[in-house]
Order: sequence, then structure tokens, then C-alpha cells
Amino acid sequence: MARTITVDLGARSYEILVGAGMLDAAGRTVSEFGAARQAVVISAEDVPAEYPLRVLEALKGAGLITEAISFSSRPTSEAVKNLKTVNYLLDSLFDVDPPVDRSCILAAVGGGVVGDVVGFVAAIALRGLRFIQCPTTLLAAVDSSVGGKTGVNHPSGKNLIGAFHQPRAVLIDTDTLKTLPAEELRNGLAECVKHAVIRDEKLLDFIESHARAILSCKADVMTELIARNVAIKAAVVADDERESGVRSHLNFGHTIGHAVEALVGYDKITHGQAVALGMVAANHMAVARGLIDAPAAERVTKLLERLGLSVRMKGLDADGVWRMMQHDKKASAGQIRMVLPTGAGEVDIFADIAIEEVRAAVAAIS
Amino acid sequence: MARTITVDLGARSYEILVGAGMLDAAGRTVSEFGAARQAVVISAEDVPAEYPLRVLEALKGAGLITEAISFSSRPTSEAVKNLKTVNYLLDSLFDVDPPVDRSCILAAVGGGVVGDVVGFVAAIALRGLRFIQCPTTLLAAVDSSVGGKTGVNHPSGKNLIGAFHQPRAVLIDTDTLKTLPAEELRNGLAECVKHAVIRDEKLLDFIESHARAILSCKADVMTELIARNVAIKAAVVADDERESGVRSHLNFGHTIGHAVEALVGYDKITHGQAVALGMVAANHMAVARGLIDAPAAERVTKLLERLGLSVRMKGLDADGVWRMMQHDKKASAGQIRMVLPTGAGEVDIFADIAIEEVRAAVAAIS
Repeated sequence: MARTITVDLGARSYEILVGAGMLDAAGRTVSEFGAARQAVVISAEDVPAEYPLRVLEALKGAGLITEAISFSSRPTSEAVKNLKTVNYLLDSLFDVDPPVDRSCILAAVGGGVVGDVVGFVAAIALRGLRFIQCPTTLLAAVDSSVGGKTGVNHPSGKNLIGAFHQPRAVLIDTDTLKTLPAEELRNGLAECVKHAVIRDEKLLDFIESHARAILSCKADVMTELIARNVAIKAAVVADDERESGVRSHLNFGHTIGHAVEALVGYDKITHGQAVALGMVAANHMAVARGLIDAPAAERVTKLLERLGLSVRMKGLDADGVWRMMQHDKKASAGQIRMVLPTGAGEVDIFADIAIEEVRAAVAAIS
Repeated sequence: MARTITVDLGARSYEILVGAGMLDAAGRTVSEFGAARQAVVISAEDVPAEYPLRVLEALKGAGLITEAISFSSRPTSEAVKNLKTVNYLLDSLFDVDPPVDRSCILAAVGGGVVGDVVGFVAAIALRGLRFIQCPTTLLAAVDSSVGGKTGVNHPSGKNLIGAFHQPRAVLIDTDTLKTLPAEELRNGLAECVKHAVIRDEKLLDFIESHARAILSCKADVMTELIARNVAIKAAVVADDERESGVRSHLNFGHTIGHAVEALVGYDKITHGQAVALGMVAANHMAVARGLIDAPAAERVTKLLERLGLSVRMKGLDADGVWRMMQHDKKASAGQIRMVLPTGAGEVDIFADIAIEEVRAAVAAIS
């Protein structure tokens, strides 16, 4: 049972298709855009070769001139998420024969890094090409593939270079999740819990009652889980495409999470694990402020543990976390803002964050 | 007498201010945007140092934290319009202390290359910073500074990498034109003639009757000339921001012009000179098709000559021009489109361009 969710952005609206075998729908999907005669499939070397190949075959089957490009993921995917890779992809793209023109469509096949990098290449090649996202990890499926945030890292910080550029469609093939390492699955589950906390208590119930089926990637449950999550992401993005307001609710767990990643090193902790720690810390702050009660916070902590995510990190330096928070690109005019829960499925943005409460929260998770 | 022209783009609308001493208005202008505490002035080493300095002082005077960055223009400004320079500017920008945040405003001070490169940096730094254009050449003033096209060249072609990113204001200081080499002035005049041909026969009258005053950069005449030209550009951009229709009228003279530049080498011919040749060739095609009469074409040729632009180029290879036209990024699905005049101040887009008529037109200018 495939599911379709629409991201409502006026002229830039698009559909997210979720279900088994969805990669093979790429040709049919792209044909509906009109005016396309050429498509270039871009993937990374750490993505199982079968996935970009299936997208390529589907596009060929729809009568498009196709080409495949792949970039190296060594030493790590995150380490190559930079302008050098963008440059390499642009060189490869402009080397395609026949030459790509403005009607060309790019297809990003892979995890979050592939989606972010290819989306950015689509944003800046010929001042904007159409592209589709084909996420093959749970994290990319429920988070980065929807919403049009594209970009790469700079030595000074993550995602400092980028653009808002919406895909024309997102194809989520639940079959691809079966090959996903457990750690990668947990990465995505942290974002699922985040969505539940900020918008949808019933999703929290769903994850709790299907935790075992989710951890074993049962097809129907994964389709339902992903559909519910992208629906939340789609609604938030439709309300605030450029993150001037409610879209920043999606940063729940990410302010301290990003600071932890920057402090301990991006290669030492997964994003999902850092976000899990960030959510537990933010919940602690919310309890201390009297915004939510302790059992509500405890419920989220327990669920994260059950999903295999650590909720403590030994020896975390609170002042270091605070320092890193001040470098976050989302700090505005030097002011730190945090998203804190205010009830079941409800959060708000707080700009009066004091060093003392961050210290106490970090102490609670270390 | 300063003049103000509005570019009407809804939430992205902005004003173009034209007049003597306008660089000193940067502080006042930026203050009106709100929420700015920091501004970074970016210029190139071939721009007279006085200009970025004046903008910097004006911004400082308005209470902003300021920083200046400059990039090398060697060997030529066009040769450094590439991703390497973008990378250098991003490194410099993220090295500014205190660190730039999303409220930071960039100011581009210089010619077309500075505006295109800085506009692109603004488009992709922190997924989009606000910026102002302070063009100091006639070409940048009447053409590239208005409309939000930003970007850089790639070894495969000009402006292949870029984004649409509108400035928040354009400040055109007519005093800066006094230091402009005659060749640079002519570069801009070719675009002025283009605007007259595509939209405004009265502007053609104006340029004809004030040619001498224009060539000697008389202040009042230059303010009037620039105001009339940016008004045309602003109206075209407001009608069609992303160039899906009438904005391509601005390509009059540019299809063959770009092909000539690519064929003879960008360092061998100025952009204005190439556009002048392109306009004469396009007019020749329009006469041959019976779209306009010969005296109308002759009038434009004569005016270009009077402004010091060559209307012939010895030994131009027609088949080479045709080949280059097929590589133009504006070719769609392999089809060459050209803008041809259809009457006084009127043009249309033609997609049925045959090699024979291009050969005849190139023969007429060689």
C-alpha cells in the first residue's frame, strides 16, 4: 500500500510517494513534470549500486536520455559534504554528452549527504535545475529529503553553504531500508521521536506500540511510520518554507545536539545519537522551567532507550557545549534560541536561555 | 537630482537609487531594512579603493559592525569569476569576527563581476544573506546589478553556476562613472541601446540626441540615461523574474554576441562590443525576414558606431558562431531561440532559426 503526501507550497508544491518498490516509479513520476528529455542520476559510492541503477533504468524506460554520476564517500560521507564535491559534480554534469540544458532533471539517490549535495548542485547549476529526491536511509526519508534545504559544510561549520531549493518529487522506497545498518536506522528514529514530541502525541503512541516491528523494519509499519513523519515535516515546511518561524520547531533537540556533535567530533557520534541527547537535555530544561512534568520527559527518554539510542554521554563538558551553541548558525544577533516542549505534541521557541540551565541539563545527561 | 525606481517583485521588491554621491547613502539604506547589526563590504582589487571605503564608512556611520573583503582581479576580472573566488570569499566571510549570522548584510561594490560573484556568495552563504548592489560601471548599473541573476563561470561556459537572488537595494552613484575607461563606458552603452530597441523608441531618440554628453559622462544626462534604463530592466524583471518568458527579450543581441565572445575568446573582445555585433546581426536577420525595414536596422547600426562600438568584425567564422550558439545554456532541448525586433521598441522570440540566416547575418557583420 503506497502512500502519497503533498507538500503544499503553491507553485512549488510536490508529492512524496512512500511504499515498496518506489524507486521504479521514477520514470513515471518525472514524465509527469513535462518538458524533460534528459535526466542525470547522482549517487555516492557508499550507496548500494542497485538503487541508482534502478532509478536510471526507470528513467530510461520513460524515454529519457540518462547518465549516472557517482561521488566518493571516503573517508566518510559527511567529510565529503563540501564545495570540493560540489565542484566535482558540476564538472561531471557539464561534461555530460549531450550537454545538459535547463530542462534536465537530476535524481539524488542515497542518504542525507547525497540529497543535500545533489539538491545544492541542482540549485546552482544553470541557476536552478529540477530534481527529485530518492532517499535510501530512514533519516533522509523522514527528514532531509523533504523541505528544500540543500547545502554543504564549510570548515567553519555544518551546512554553512547552501540554498533553499525544493525537489519536484520525493520517492521513498521502503525496500531500501532493509539493507540499512542498525545504527543508520536509529539515526532516523531519533528524528521520528522528535516529530512526535513537537507535533503529534499519537505518533509517540504509535512508535511505542510498534517499536519491535520498527526495529526489524517490517514493511507495512515502516510505510505507516514514514508517511506519518513526512506528513508532519510537510505541514511544518508548508507553514514556513524559509524557517522564519515555526519551521525552527524542527530544531528541537538540535541546538544542544549540534553542539555535542561539534564538541566531540562529527566522526565520533551519529547525528541521531546527538539529537537524542539534545532532546533529553531540552526536556530536562523544560521540566526545570515547569513547562512539562517529569513523567512526560521520562516517557521520551525511555522510548529513545528502547529504540537503542543512548540517553547519557559520560564526561560531556557543559561549558564546551555552551561555547559551541554560540557558534550555531541559527543563533541570531548572538542570541541563543532553543525549542522546548510545552505540552504533549507542543513546543515553543525560547530566547532567554541561560548558561546555568544548559549546565544543569548537560549534567543530567552526562 | 537623485532618482528612485522600484523593482516590483512582491515581498522581494526593492529600490534602485540613482544619483551623484549615492555610495554615501548605503548606511541610511541598510538601516531601513531592519534587524541588521553587521555588514561586510566586498569589492575587487581593480575597483578604485575609494568606493568600497565610502560604502564602509557609510555603514559604520549607521552603527553597523563592518568588515571589508577584496578579491584579486588578476589576470582579468572575468578570469576570476569562478568557484575558486567564491570559495575564497566564503572562507573570508566565515573568518570575520564576530562571526556573521543570518542578519548580516553584504555590499557588492564594483563592476558586473563583483556584483555577480558577491550576489552568488550572498545566495549561498547561510542559505541566503541580504545584499545590496553598488555598481561602479555603466554596464553593471544598467544591466547586471538589477534583476537578481547571480553566478560565476565554469570552464564549460559563462554563468553556468549561479542562482536567482534579488538584492535588497541598488545604489548607483553617477560620480563613479567619471573614472571609467572609455571602453568600459561603451560596454554599458551597448546595453542601453539594447533596452531602447526592445522596449522604448524614445530612449533611442534620447541617446541619439545626447550622444556627445553621454560620451563625456555629463552628470544630469547620465542620471537620466541610467534611470530610464533601469526602469526598463526593472519592468521586464517584474514581469518575469525567472526568465520563463519576456525576460529573455533582454537577450537581444546576446545569442550571437555570446557565440562571438566564446569563439574569439573572452579576453579578446569586450561584452559590449560582442553585444553590439550581435544586435547588428540580429537586425540583419529581422530585415531579411521582413520583420523590420532596412532604415530601422541602419539607425541602430549608425548609433552604435557613433557611440564608438564596431559594427563589423573581420574574418568571423559563421559556422563557428553557429556551433557556439548550440552550446548556449539558454538553448532548450537543443533548440536555438533568438530575440528579433518586430517594430520600433518591440521584439519577439523566434525558435525557428536556420543555419542559413545565421550565416548570412554573420557575413553581413564580417
